[in-house]
Amino acid sequence: MPNVLVLLAEGFEEIETITPIDILRRAGVEVIVAALVDGIHVSGRSGITLHTDTTVSSIETRLFDAIFLPGGPGVKHLRADPRVRGLLERHAAAERWITAICAAPTVLHDAGLLQGRRYTAHPSVANELADIVATERVVIDGLLITSRGAGTALDFALQLVEQLVSREKAAEVAASICA
Amino acid sequence: MPNVLVLLAEGFEEIETITPIDILRRAGVEVIVAALVDGIHVSGRSGITLHTDTTVSSIETRLFDAIFLPGGPGVKHLRADPRVRGLLERHAAAERWITAICAAPTVLHDAGLLQGRRYTAHPSVANELADIVATERVVIDGLLITSRGAGTALDFALQLVEQLVSREKAAEVAASICA
Repeated sequence: MPNVLVLLAEGFEEIETITPIDILRRAGVEVIVAALVDGIHVSGRSGITLHTDTTVSSIETRLFDAIFLPGGPGVKHLRADPRVRGLLERHAAAERWITAICAAPTVLHDAGLLQGRRYTAHPSVANELADIVATERVVIDGLLITSRGAGTALDFALQLVEQLVSREKAAEVAASICA
Repeated sequence: MPNVLVLLAEGFEEIETITPIDILRRAGVEVIVAALVDGIHVSGRSGITLHTDTTVSSIETRLFDAIFLPGGPGVKHLRADPRVRGLLERHAAAERWITAICAAPTVLHDAGLLQGRRYTAHPSVANELADIVATERVVIDGLLITSRGAGTALDFALQLVEQLVSREKAAEVAASICA
């Protein structure tokens, strides 16, 4: 089974974070949630505190099948952290999946990973990302998967399962949750 | 603004729990998450550990505008806890909102709160709840709101905002998350 690294910063959007973790684990994917801070407690924009599995410091030299960046005000911390950029550049070079939702595609933009690509993001970052595809809830271009916000998190999560595991597994998980 | 009590037991379904908390807080509703255990750490069915705001022991004599019961394997702990039944009976008698998703309507059934009511639940508990309305994602009957599973959690959460706050606020939150 593939594995997915989730990078978690203070101020993450809770629905956007939890939905892919839950759906991917239901599909049998190994999900590793890593805190940017050196501890396991990270709080989201709506005041929910989670325990992460590990810290970015502990995993920054590892290679995963996919990286997922959730949105929310915490995106500013993802953008400011050179370890995040390093992980993204190394994973893109190794042809691994790069996935982001809401405002998080701005982190990919900073790393030059959106140039010439089809992608979407939250309308609130349209001033920075002029080429957002606004008509699709999830956009796939090669190994890049992007989505718009908490309201599209379930479509995004099921699409991750379809791409990383299979269309059949995505359909099975969707049926089990009455999607 | 109204307040909502969320009762959290080990094995809660993460999407079903987090989605209403996040959406209600975005709408300005006060959400109080209370652990059945005497501590603030509770782990969900997909291995995500949350911090609750308080414990059931600390709030069991209070009255809230609404009670929300998430689903998941943790429902068995909700069913086994006499404090949960006491809270439900007292809130029903005081004409407060009673809301549940997935398998959690079985807890309401145990307390006699589904008799003669329109409701839905996850198909996996249809053997216990013969009268599930299977064609609607969210069912409202008086002060009872029920829904089917993780795949309907966002519809459920937005319906809670519509009923507890206003239709305008629900539309505003839905637009802000690209629902």
